[in-house]
Amino acid sequence: MIDIKKLLKVEGEIVNRWLDRLLPSESQPPVSLHTAMRYSVFAGGKRLRPILCKMAFERFGGEGERIYPPACALEMIHTYSLIHDDLPCMDDDDLRRGKPTSHVKFGEAMAILAGDALHAIAFENLAKSGDIRVVADVARAIGTEGLVGGQVFDLEAEGGVPTAETLERIHRGKTGALIATSLRAGALIAGASDEDVEKVSIYGEKLGLAFQIIDDILDIIADESALGKPIGSDAERDKATYPCLYGIDESRRLAEKLVREAKEALGAEVANEKLFAIADFIHERMF
Amino acid sequence: MIDIKKLLKVEGEIVNRWLDRLLPSESQPPVSLHTAMRYSVFAGGKRLRPILCKMAFERFGGEGERIYPPACALEMIHTYSLIHDDLPCMDDDDLRRGKPTSHVKFGEAMAILAGDALHAIAFENLAKSGDIRVVADVARAIGTEGLVGGQVFDLEAEGGVPTAETLERIHRGKTGALIATSLRAGALIAGASDEDVEKVSIYGEKLGLAFQIIDDILDIIADESALGKPIGSDAERDKATYPCLYGIDESRRLAEKLVREAKEALGAEVANEKLFAIADFIHERMF
Repeated sequence: MIDIKKLLKVEGEIVNRWLDRLLPSESQPPVSLHTAMRYSVFAGGKRLRPILCKMAFERFGGEGERIYPPACALEMIHTYSLIHDDLPCMDDDDLRRGKPTSHVKFGEAMAILAGDALHAIAFENLAKSGDIRVVADVARAIGTEGLVGGQVFDLEAEGGVPTAETLERIHRGKTGALIATSLRAGALIAGASDEDVEKVSIYGEKLGLAFQIIDDILDIIADESALGKPIGSDAERDKATYPCLYGIDESRRLAEKLVREAKEALGAEVANEKLFAIADFIHERMF
Repeated sequence: MIDIKKLLKVEGEIVNRWLDRLLPSESQPPVSLHTAMRYSVFAGGKRLRPILCKMAFERFGGEGERIYPPACALEMIHTYSLIHDDLPCMDDDDLRRGKPTSHVKFGEAMAILAGDALHAIAFENLAKSGDIRVVADVARAIGTEGLVGGQVFDLEAEGGVPTAETLERIHRGKTGALIATSLRAGALIAGASDEDVEKVSIYGEKLGLAFQIIDDILDIIADESALGKPIGSDAERDKATYPCLYGIDESRRLAEKLVREAKEALGAEVANEKLFAIADFIHERMF
């Protein structure tokens, strides 16, 4: 039986040490920029994307530390997207993980530039994989068909009642795409077969969608201080979420179904046990 | 004798056709995002970076159309950086090449996202080179040591009198780094030797700096309608420029010296004639 909480904690700490090593020092000019980049990267977070990347890497026989630069690149991208999403002209959030957001702390110009710099340095670290397929895959996942596209659909859906199709498109883009490419990257770097890359990709897409639905449920029911952001902040802005459209119970069932399907896509082999354990852990956050 | 104006026109048109092919169609969702991306990419511009990339590629024996996706990626990056630089919290420019800037036309959120999406799709197209060194090199050139770093130094210098060192740091980052990596990318993809990559890189850095100085001179002396932006807009905001620090005559001499050094770095071989012609063309814009 895997102690998933301990595993996530240990792996998260390794990722943090690598992030510290890979990001420019705060004493190096431009000091203000490096300070802002580090502030957001080290503001907390479970390091889910790098950890999933590393697990897929090991699942398909990858060994050694070479996975960390590309794995950490995925966290840099995640952080850049959060910084830009929080901006006043976007979701206008003042708090993230209980701390002032980048533009509140450093001003809008620096927040935009810190995001842009994290975006660029992420590709420098993806390139360290030596695998051009990884660069292409991640770039596609975070562009107009993925991360950025999802944010556009999200902004355009605000204020109205989204259809189920729109909602899925938002979350596939904003959350699913980066999680799925994190898993594919790990598998590709390990030298997995096309078939295995495809399996782990479906697992990632389903898990990413479940993760987002659960996040939205927690946003409604959880305690403000525990989550570090105002309760119901999404609902206040009429953000498109599953609980708003389907209610909490139906959203829970949907998340449960997605987690089950994610595991089924992977197959019940022993080698998948860590990826199963993470899926169960994400599922259990709901309760 | 090379007809450089004609060559730039013909090559620019080929680059435009490739950009049209490589960017998502406006009819494809998210329509608003793709419209904003295309608006800025096709708002004009000489396509200097893709053309320099292609010239370096051919100079070192590269053949065929495979240079165009990575070459066009450099224009996508240039466009993303202009969109973000024009934002109200940055340089706050309403006009660019005589047209409303992205945030004026589409709103700030869409302008930021159009920039982010161009940044991502650029790496998708750099990856089409199949050369991981190109991805690493460009990523480094547009991060905290290059493009983004230069913009930070620029913002921080506003209002005060910059030192010569600060000024050089700003322009090396904002203009020199992307032009130099464009040339290195072309040379790398062609399979040039390390020594040749280094030569073309120095040429690019010097030319980029000269280009910026000349731009700043033109900003002061040129006619508003010819340039498409308000005359003296940099001076009004106390932007750090060479003409402000050294005066127009001394800046002219400096640009002339840089162009000469750029050509010297390359060496006077016949194979360099197009790169020489571009350097002379940039120099002659001053007069």
